[in-house]
Amino acid sequence: MAMNLSKVLVIGGTGYIGKYIVQGSAKSGHQTFALMREASLSDPVKGKIVQSFKDLGVTILNGDLSDKESLVKAIQHVDVVISTVGNSQILNQINIISAIKESGKHIKRFLPSEFGNDVDRTVAIGPAKTEFELKAEIRRVVEAEGVPYTYVINNCFDGYFLATLAQCESRLTSPPRDKVTIYGDGNTKAILNKEEDIAAYTMRAIDDPRTLNKTFFINPPKNIVSQNETVALWESKIGKTLEKTYVSEEELLKKIPESPHPLDLLFALNHAIFVKGDQTCFTIDPSSGVEASQLFPDVKYTSVDEYLSQFV
Amino acid sequence: MAMNLSKVLVIGGTGYIGKYIVQGSAKSGHQTFALMREASLSDPVKGKIVQSFKDLGVTILNGDLSDKESLVKAIQHVDVVISTVGNSQILNQINIISAIKESGKHIKRFLPSEFGNDVDRTVAIGPAKTEFELKAEIRRVVEAEGVPYTYVINNCFDGYFLATLAQCESRLTSPPRDKVTIYGDGNTKAILNKEEDIAAYTMRAIDDPRTLNKTFFINPPKNIVSQNETVALWESKIGKTLEKTYVSEEELLKKIPESPHPLDLLFALNHAIFVKGDQTCFTIDPSSGVEASQLFPDVKYTSVDEYLSQFV
Repeated sequence: MAMNLSKVLVIGGTGYIGKYIVQGSAKSGHQTFALMREASLSDPVKGKIVQSFKDLGVTILNGDLSDKESLVKAIQHVDVVISTVGNSQILNQINIISAIKESGKHIKRFLPSEFGNDVDRTVAIGPAKTEFELKAEIRRVVEAEGVPYTYVINNCFDGYFLATLAQCESRLTSPPRDKVTIYGDGNTKAILNKEEDIAAYTMRAIDDPRTLNKTFFINPPKNIVSQNETVALWESKIGKTLEKTYVSEEELLKKIPESPHPLDLLFALNHAIFVKGDQTCFTIDPSSGVEASQLFPDVKYTSVDEYLSQFV
Repeated sequence: MAMNLSKVLVIGGTGYIGKYIVQGSAKSGHQTFALMREASLSDPVKGKIVQSFKDLGVTILNGDLSDKESLVKAIQHVDVVISTVGNSQILNQINIISAIKESGKHIKRFLPSEFGNDVDRTVAIGPAKTEFELKAEIRRVVEAEGVPYTYVINNCFDGYFLATLAQCESRLTSPPRDKVTIYGDGNTKAILNKEEDIAAYTMRAIDDPRTLNKTFFINPPKNIVSQNETVALWESKIGKTLEKTYVSEEELLKKIPESPHPLDLLFALNHAIFVKGDQTCFTIDPSSGVEASQLFPDVKYTSVDEYLSQFV
């Protein structure tokens, strides 16, 4: 374990991306702390996650996002704070920011819960836009308070968007072999990353001065692909042509307000990403953004092609 | 139009249940106002909804949940305020409460955005619990500020839960005819209501002293059904037996943290409703709750049986 690696606190470690971040932090040799609610420890599912963290040498701290005292205490242990709290807790991160200020501790970097699209550049509409605005609100507080930050934009998670070829059928755990639905004309490019790679890039970013007060885009070139490209790749792997249904932008726009929560959000995200190109319709402004695979070319990321091969 | 019907302001009228509430308010003869963001008027989809409101005689007011001035102004026009804002805006309803206080206007009833399960009685876990806690937080502010309220608990929406037999395949617009997934053992009872009926009961509630400062449960007896009952009813209507896949509670609990947002929430809601019986595992406490079909037996609600018939 290198002596100069930052000590890391993860808040929200039992969440979807949180698990990978905690594991990635511990495995990359950072002394790692995870803030957990008392209730999570006795929860049958979360309890197992917590045990897996302990097995990796992670220190579990008792606390809660709404208990600032516990946040201030936890922050004393570390140099870097990574929040991976869920979407319904985005605004509660105000408590983390004020705990960082109150702690008196020199926190070298704070990563608020992002791990999606760039909410300052988004073209999302409706419920997706509303959710993104909450993240943008937190960014403004971070900046106003002068807390050193990195905003991690990992775009799509492979485990959901690639493993299912972006199908809403949430029970799919591998790409469909008969039918596939394509949003828009299927030519819009999205960016798909494997969860472990996202964690690896994130852990490299936290100690690097080049990512300080920057938006950190994980846009590795082999993972910038359209739905048509992904489907064609999958078809070539399984040697079969899928039956395709195209959902036009107009149909999708109609489905958003017609669908109850949280399906409205799912459709709005699909619209933003796969029709409007929310992840690829802009170039990174070098004054505010950096790209992960360029900064860390030694990180061996999993390409879309490699990822799909596991399901053949 | 009866002279003594309250004037109604709906905030969040282009949302899923909001549309039905605005329509139900206007059609039941209440002078109806809908607060809309400027951007909604020019939005292609929301613009059509707004036009349909105007055609019903609804007055569109310009404003925004985050612009308290606009809220205070809008409140001047009415006696009753109904919020149907989306889940990502629940906490922003603080602004409505403070606008009601500031307006100096005697508001006879405020209905915060609920329209789901009883968040004070819930057994939901994970992301569903977190979302429910936000609604509970708003309830506590409403009560502390002494704003007269009614909390409308409509349980499940037919348009999603019954029209699809609670299948996550969001592209279904009618019940499946080949396969169906059942959560748990399928015997837990849920409560399924048609959107128009929810609006009709809500409009009856707002002027009734029996619902003042009460939780208003829409639990009509014919609509309290288990998944097994609903599926059997559908099978008898189409004269065909569906292939059933059972998802155990354990599997579902595992899927929640393994699924990215918003699918984690969808699974957590299904777990709460269809496995744990979140809507039916308690009896209504008459000191704090009333039941809609008992209070308003003249409202002709659509039964699960009748609703399913439209798809045959």
